[in-house]
Amino acid sequence: MLSNIRIVLINTFHPGNVGAIARAMKNMGLTNLYLVDPNDYPSEEATSRAAGAVDLLESATIVNTLEEAIHDCSLVIGTSARHRTFQLPIMNARECAQTVIPEAKEHQVAIVFGRETTGLLNEEIAQCHRQVYIDANDEYPVLNISQAVQIVSYEIWMANQDKSTHKTDVGEYPLKQDMERFYEHLEETLYGINFIIRNHPGKVLDKLHRFFNRSRPEKQELGILRGILAAVQREAGLTEANNHPEKKKDQHKKEIE
Amino acid sequence: MLSNIRIVLINTFHPGNVGAIARAMKNMGLTNLYLVDPNDYPSEEATSRAAGAVDLLESATIVNTLEEAIHDCSLVIGTSARHRTFQLPIMNARECAQTVIPEAKEHQVAIVFGRETTGLLNEEIAQCHRQVYIDANDEYPVLNISQAVQIVSYEIWMANQDKSTHKTDVGEYPLKQDMERFYEHLEETLYGINFIIRNHPGKVLDKLHRFFNRSRPEKQELGILRGILAAVQREAGLTEANNHPEKKKDQHKKEIE
Repeated sequence: MLSNIRIVLINTFHPGNVGAIARAMKNMGLTNLYLVDPNDYPSEEATSRAAGAVDLLESATIVNTLEEAIHDCSLVIGTSARHRTFQLPIMNARECAQTVIPEAKEHQVAIVFGRETTGLLNEEIAQCHRQVYIDANDEYPVLNISQAVQIVSYEIWMANQDKSTHKTDVGEYPLKQDMERFYEHLEETLYGINFIIRNHPGKVLDKLHRFFNRSRPEKQELGILRGILAAVQREAGLTEANNHPEKKKDQHKKEIE
Repeated sequence: MLSNIRIVLINTFHPGNVGAIARAMKNMGLTNLYLVDPNDYPSEEATSRAAGAVDLLESATIVNTLEEAIHDCSLVIGTSARHRTFQLPIMNARECAQTVIPEAKEHQVAIVFGRETTGLLNEEIAQCHRQVYIDANDEYPVLNISQAVQIVSYEIWMANQDKSTHKTDVGEYPLKQDMERFYEHLEETLYGINFIIRNHPGKVLDKLHRFFNRSRPEKQELGILRGILAAVQREAGLTEANNHPEKKKDQHKKEIE
């Protein structure tokens, strides 16, 4: 189950932190490390700090963008200090672990950590369903990133030991990539009905994005939403084939075959 | 209350760890750091890793022996991996925090961390009342020392937020130095009645030491035990003044005055 939980690090600056994180993860039974465009990596400093967890560094997945690191996940949780809120449902590390454990029985879950100095950017938080913070001293609340990963991983380990956490019934959630297709479909439809004007989308798309990530539709609910979009396109005289990029691609593919 | 809890580090090897620990402590509201004979300290590496917690390094107490670091504490807890047991009552980090918080309302409490590679020596554990371990992956259970301090401090912070932890009624316990006086008295008495032979104490003193640390007599109980020792000395014709080092010292002092 723990193998379905991945730790995603964005633009780490100090390679020593990556090593310390590998060790912290392995101590707590986590094995899946994703590095998004890390600075100065691979590095001897990382290997040295990893100690007996060099295997995690060797099997780490290195990608260029956050999207690549989370596309197959059904739940994406972004870390940040408590005072930075992004209108996402917010949990502390203990609550986060209790949410993650039942979900990870059948689905891939990502916990995303931002840069050492600046954390996650707004557009990165916008890709998350939930926000997690670590309870800490208000006068000095910012932990070193490897310590933050240690606590989140520790709480996951503790929650996994606690059999009562396993009971929760988890809905069937779409993968991140299915949500992306939905957003494309939504955008295309909103352009089609002139609800938003191409090249002048304003903030309405961002707000919809945030709304749907926060509300986290289940798989079946997403199917219904897409059905509605298709119906709107049909009724507005916008055939899907001409307007929905994915369908267009599929059709194109068929023509080639 | 948190200011009555001290973190004691014995013979740290890497000064960077001391810096990381200062930061980890301050993040969790702890301020009291004791360094027993640290290697390569003070150091720039420590200052750099401490980030915004340099004040903790500056106010840290540096001593030569563990005894000096804990003599005024009523509760001393030693950290070690779960598989190393020393016949002391053992708790995980969460249980440890629940024990520490009510005690720290009125008393000094020490949590002692051993060397990076070898942990605590048996004679150091023998000075503790309780043993704490961190729940971790059995296949790779040993955390970096700064990560271990982070988790223990985090659990203390969490327990301190949880008001239900505060209710427990705590007995009146003797200070570590009062226990030391008791051990001296005990030893002197056991020599006096030839229960143990001077220069050939065998393991019996160690075993008594361990027993009394584990059973943790309250202040009043310790008074009773010392009363018994005094009675034994009197009945065996060993006047306290001639046999009890502390009293002897006092007498000597008077003679000088």
